Amino acid sequence: MALLIQKFGGTSVGSLDRIQVVADVIEKTARAGHQLVVVLSAMSGETDRLCQMAQRVSQNPNERELDMLLSSGERVTIALMTMTLQERGIRARSFTGRQVGIVTNSSHTKARITRVTADRVKGTLADGVIPIVAGFQGINESSDVTTLGRGGSDLTAVALASALKADRCVIYTDVEGVYTADPRIVPHARRLEKLSYEEMLELASMGAKVLQARSVEFAAKYGVPLEVKSSFTEGEGSLVTHEDAEMERVSVSGVTGDRNQAKITVVGVPDSPGIAAKLFGAVADAAIIVDMIIQNVSQDSLTDISFTVPKGDLPQALSLVRDIAKEIGARSVEVKDDIAKVSLVGVGMRSHSGVASRMFQALSREGINIMMISTSEIKISCVIEEKFFELALRSLHDEFQLEHIPKTEK
Amino acid sequence: MALLIQKFGGTSVGSLDRIQVVADVIEKTARAGHQLVVVLSAMSGETDRLCQMAQRVSQNPNERELDMLLSSGERVTIALMTMTLQERGIRARSFTGRQVGIVTNSSHTKARITRVTADRVKGTLADGVIPIVAGFQGINESSDVTTLGRGGSDLTAVALASALKADRCVIYTDVEGVYTADPRIVPHARRLEKLSYEEMLELASMGAKVLQARSVEFAAKYGVPLEVKSSFTEGEGSLVTHEDAEMERVSVSGVTGDRNQAKITVVGVPDSPGIAAKLFGAVADAAIIVDMIIQNVSQDSLTDISFTVPKGDLPQALSLVRDIAKEIGARSVEVKDDIAKVSLVGVGMRSHSGVASRMFQALSREGINIMMISTSEIKISCVIEEKFFELALRSLHDEFQLEHIPKTEK
Repeated sequence: MALLIQKFGGTSVGSLDRIQVVADVIEKTARAGHQLVVVLSAMSGETDRLCQMAQRVSQNPNERELDMLLSSGERVTIALMTMTLQERGIRARSFTGRQVGIVTNSSHTKARITRVTADRVKGTLADGVIPIVAGFQGINESSDVTTLGRGGSDLTAVALASALKADRCVIYTDVEGVYTADPRIVPHARRLEKLSYEEMLELASMGAKVLQARSVEFAAKYGVPLEVKSSFTEGEGSLVTHEDAEMERVSVSGVTGDRNQAKITVVGVPDSPGIAAKLFGAVADAAIIVDMIIQNVSQDSLTDISFTVPKGDLPQALSLVRDIAKEIGARSVEVKDDIAKVSLVGVGMRSHSGVASRMFQALSREGINIMMISTSEIKISCVIEEKFFELALRSLHDEFQLEHIPKTEK
Repeated sequence: MALLIQKFGGTSVGSLDRIQVVADVIEKTARAGHQLVVVLSAMSGETDRLCQMAQRVSQNPNERELDMLLSSGERVTIALMTMTLQERGIRARSFTGRQVGIVTNSSHTKARITRVTADRVKGTLADGVIPIVAGFQGINESSDVTTLGRGGSDLTAVALASALKADRCVIYTDVEGVYTADPRIVPHARRLEKLSYEEMLELASMGAKVLQARSVEFAAKYGVPLEVKSSFTEGEGSLVTHEDAEMERVSVSGVTGDRNQAKITVVGVPDSPGIAAKLFGAVADAAIIVDMIIQNVSQDSLTDISFTVPKGDLPQALSLVRDIAKEIGARSVEVKDDIAKVSLVGVGMRSHSGVASRMFQALSREGINIMMISTSEIKISCVIEEKFFELALRSLHDEFQLEHIPKTEK
């Protein structure tokens, strides 16, 4: 008998019919003899509906009041799910974030969990009753309702798993797990049975929307084994856990990418101390996240600085950069927004050499020019022309034979 | 500067446009220099929508879970109203039933208030901020959400008024106050400026749906001055307060009625001790409320017993009564369901004689036969044929000249 946390998102509980399907999953787990705690989001669409009403009455709705408004949604799903289970003769009881002791700071709409008491959940489990918990919400020290921001229900599930020392936290979603690549682009992409928290984080930060980075970080910090699987189909998912020897034997776990970046180049920058600090300080002050930075070798005391920013921030970034370029006497500012980033991710890179050169060769064979390169311990990224994005992902997937379950070289 | 409680029901906050109208009322009161606490219901229709979903997932939804479900509705209206006021530059803050300390027993869906702490409301008022409070909901000693049943938001308002020693509790509704008769039946009906709690209770129990009896009882017990007025139109409402000398000078305050009763007569009952107890004990055990009872004078040791029950309970009552009639050897059971009750209400009846005879004469003049009569200290009721219902109300209204503001006889 294991203790499991099962989390279902808004799509999974988006209608009364879908609630019955989720109740099937819960019933099956309970009848198999497991203890479980269920965490639910609001019905899909409900949060948007409430936000639109708020926007209609206020240009800039107060965040404490937004939290009061939005926290109504999960009350509906936990109550309906509990009734559904009770109708099937399964003992269940609903709890709000407050009632399970999800205590947060006071940053309304994006609160951080400070502690989890979980007393009532423990007592309920001990009574043989399934706690059905409202995700996404908590309570601050002043007893006001807070919400945890995007992906907040995942965070509730992971935090409860940690507090209860659960054997596993299962995140049900609309995909079957984490893949070696986006299956819409790479048809042969394979579901990963197992990957490390770090790999999951690199994939999450690259726009793979399976799990929010915050939940993965939390799970890594407290060692919560996470499983991602589909609530629509039967079958195994992907297990996200601590890196182990087996994972390290594989050099590359997956390929991923991001076509939402734009490149800015400041040409002819005087190569003197403090120039880069000035430039990137101004961009950071505007809360624009710079991803990759490349500075050429200086020639005649002049250098070029290239960096990437999210496409949505390009107009603002450009306006800032042009002002500074003038100030520091740079020759010109150039922009290229038809670029994309492709990345290889794998904890095995640490112990396998030659991954980077195989990547460059594979891209070169397809005639794809590499504009920028950045590397971390478990990731190598290249910026290329956007039109080659799909081709690059497929080539890299083939090069590292990711469609095959790896024969781990001992 | 007065401290006012203002309560707005579901119709008053049924749309974003209506919320703006209510915000106008609140803003006007605040700008006039009054302190105020606002109590809101859920948007009209929302409670029905949630109940229907519950009925679809469960034949007999658990009441604790129903309360979890239903208590989501007021969170939406208090948050939206607070945002609306803030957008107008008015300082406001929303609170749930729990947050204002509405503590109840554990009778889910019909909880009774056991105490009201109101600490956060006091602090908020002291800061010059308007508390916007969720009506209808409270919290029990186990920290579970409860709801107060029909008219629960009125009860929240009255309980807060009592705890805060407010100068007045104003219940905004879709009528302009309490009338001498139902204006749809008696076109000359006049709004009462002032009436006593007892008169209001008699009117409420007769189906005048302006205020639920529980709220009036609560207000009477704690001496909370209640005002009923329209949220749709400007102008005065009706003040419900302790009986005063002026009220007593008027013999009749209003006429009211109930066409939802049916009469059962048990004919030829042996006139022996314990028969009535047996009969009405069985009806009471089935939770059927008997209104009027008449027993004829016994002839030849046989008597007839007539009584009225709500029409909806007639089939069940009849089946019970027929069994008992057989058991006690009564001759037959007769039913008449085309009856109606008309009543005169007024605290002045205590000190004015002749009201009953004037009532009987007025009905007689119209050729209306009286089938049953019952009297209390401040009410006289007659059961008549249902087809004479409107005629009887208009005749009585005329007889006691209720369309005129009374010249109080000193």
